[in-house]
Amino acid sequence: MAATKTYLTGIQTSGMPHIGNYIGAIKPALEAAGDNDTLYFLADYHSLNSVKDPDKLRHDIRSVAATWLACGLDPERTTIYRQSSIPEVFELTTVLTTVTAKGLMNRAHAYKAARDRNEAAGNADLDAGVNMGLFNYPILMAADILVMEAHVVPVGRDQAQHIEYAADIAKSFNHLYGDSYSFPIPQGSFPEGEASILPGIDGRKMSKSYDNHIPIFLPENKLKKLVRRIPTDSTPVEDPKDPDTSVPFQLLSQFADKERTAETRKRLEAGGMGWGELKNDLFEVLNATFGPMRERYDELVAPGSELDDILEAGAARARERSRATLAKVRAAVGMD
Amino acid sequence: MAATKTYLTGIQTSGMPHIGNYIGAIKPALEAAGDNDTLYFLADYHSLNSVKDPDKLRHDIRSVAATWLACGLDPERTTIYRQSSIPEVFELTTVLTTVTAKGLMNRAHAYKAARDRNEAAGNADLDAGVNMGLFNYPILMAADILVMEAHVVPVGRDQAQHIEYAADIAKSFNHLYGDSYSFPIPQGSFPEGEASILPGIDGRKMSKSYDNHIPIFLPENKLKKLVRRIPTDSTPVEDPKDPDTSVPFQLLSQFADKERTAETRKRLEAGGMGWGELKNDLFEVLNATFGPMRERYDELVAPGSELDDILEAGAARARERSRATLAKVRAAVGMD
Repeated sequence: MAATKTYLTGIQTSGMPHIGNYIGAIKPALEAAGDNDTLYFLADYHSLNSVKDPDKLRHDIRSVAATWLACGLDPERTTIYRQSSIPEVFELTTVLTTVTAKGLMNRAHAYKAARDRNEAAGNADLDAGVNMGLFNYPILMAADILVMEAHVVPVGRDQAQHIEYAADIAKSFNHLYGDSYSFPIPQGSFPEGEASILPGIDGRKMSKSYDNHIPIFLPENKLKKLVRRIPTDSTPVEDPKDPDTSVPFQLLSQFADKERTAETRKRLEAGGMGWGELKNDLFEVLNATFGPMRERYDELVAPGSELDDILEAGAARARERSRATLAKVRAAVGMD
Repeated sequence: MAATKTYLTGIQTSGMPHIGNYIGAIKPALEAAGDNDTLYFLADYHSLNSVKDPDKLRHDIRSVAATWLACGLDPERTTIYRQSSIPEVFELTTVLTTVTAKGLMNRAHAYKAARDRNEAAGNADLDAGVNMGLFNYPILMAADILVMEAHVVPVGRDQAQHIEYAADIAKSFNHLYGDSYSFPIPQGSFPEGEASILPGIDGRKMSKSYDNHIPIFLPENKLKKLVRRIPTDSTPVEDPKDPDTSVPFQLLSQFADKERTAETRKRLEAGGMGWGELKNDLFEVLNATFGPMRERYDELVAPGSELDDILEAGAARARERSRATLAKVRAAVGMD
């Protein structure tokens, strides 16, 4: 039997994703999973670094889990679980701290970015506002990966350093304890080519921080209103229009099929199609894409739904792995 | 019913204690426990920062646990457990990192001492040789204390900062989540007056790092040889001697009863008692003190002894507390 590689995808639980996340992260991840042995985990303790509102945290976790399931994550073929359901992650984190040089953490991008922001703001204390959750995060992420003995971690290029760190920490453990147990060295898997970057309703890159995003599961009437708010110029209906500078067209082209996209392009360039009609089309296409998913989302996000059972079953499967790994680690270091 | 205060004592698992540790730490801790609700934990994951030899780690943990039990720790009246048996400690550590400023860790004594050593050695990288286990240790220690909802932590004065940090971290959690759950704020309890400092066999303070210590449970013949090695001057037997500058006398006075100590002082000052006789007396007194404890120690330290059951029973009792605390913490932060 050929050795199967284990894929592990971490999911940030920072509120409902937007349609840019769907195109840039959720859809490619679900497609890439294919027939691999794939695990997905909700990095809920990571969110606790920034979200101190318990109700928001609860809702965000539920909402993000429901989103991925509604988007097609199959909990029978893959395993989805909450990071916070795996106690072995936290004990392994403690073990890994003993083989991780502080210098490595000093050079972590997210931490350095926080220092740079303090420096730019003229703050003499470069560690102002930095909590230990942020500083330790690369070790917690290494534990997330290593406790599942994952081989491949699909991530965006901005996460490449975290995977290198997980590999470095694994190597440093293996160097000390490899006679008795070795972690597989994890590798990142990065999207090929340029990631699709969707424009937001103001034309800039779609991002929650610009507040120009279209949440993935807006109720129909709100979705319609939001699409109508996309600014367009005053070119009259009958005049030719440039699809490539049109935000509604760019959005439409990501969600409509090729035929419809080509036809719309032709009509815009020829003149006779107004912005209002284009926006109506965009709304239709988005609603057709996300409508059925939204229904599933609404079912799952409701309190007491089967979401709880799905996450519990996923956690039970994931813990079979994490328990086995931690037992080997404890025996290797002498903590048995 | 009056509220009972919970006392928590951490025990370092760095090899067999010496008779100076017995007088300075073990005996006062056991006496102080009295009728309080007292927990003792073996800080085994702390040792993993420095001990990378699994066999040594295993033996050290067993040896230290057996020592405290042989010295009179009563596992029926108090609770003794290994830190590594309490998974809730590590998850709580992760929670606490999210409410702990990195600046607090930057100012921790143990970490600053490591930087000072690098600076003194002319090392440009002040973090050289510092691992994240050392840097995070104050948070792990806070979790050790807070997960048991301990009120009082008997420690040496050198540990005062760690207790302050645990209190600071508890306050910062309580400030954010106090509507739903608050940790008791732990307090240190420090030895009154000067701690008894025993001289080592070379006259300097007894310390493993000077290699001048008398291990607490040496076999009889080794103990005799070690006591004979204590250097003395060449004053003839019949001459008067100064007890207060004599290492064997100072050691004897810590372990002999008052009568015997007074009589020995008189005989030394009068002349007629030689160093050899004094050393024989010291050996006798040490052997009378530690002999019976050594037998119990030898029983407990043997593989498969009742030590395993004692630690398992202690862990089970301790986990009733830690599980309850973590459940309250998780509910408070929204991770339920």
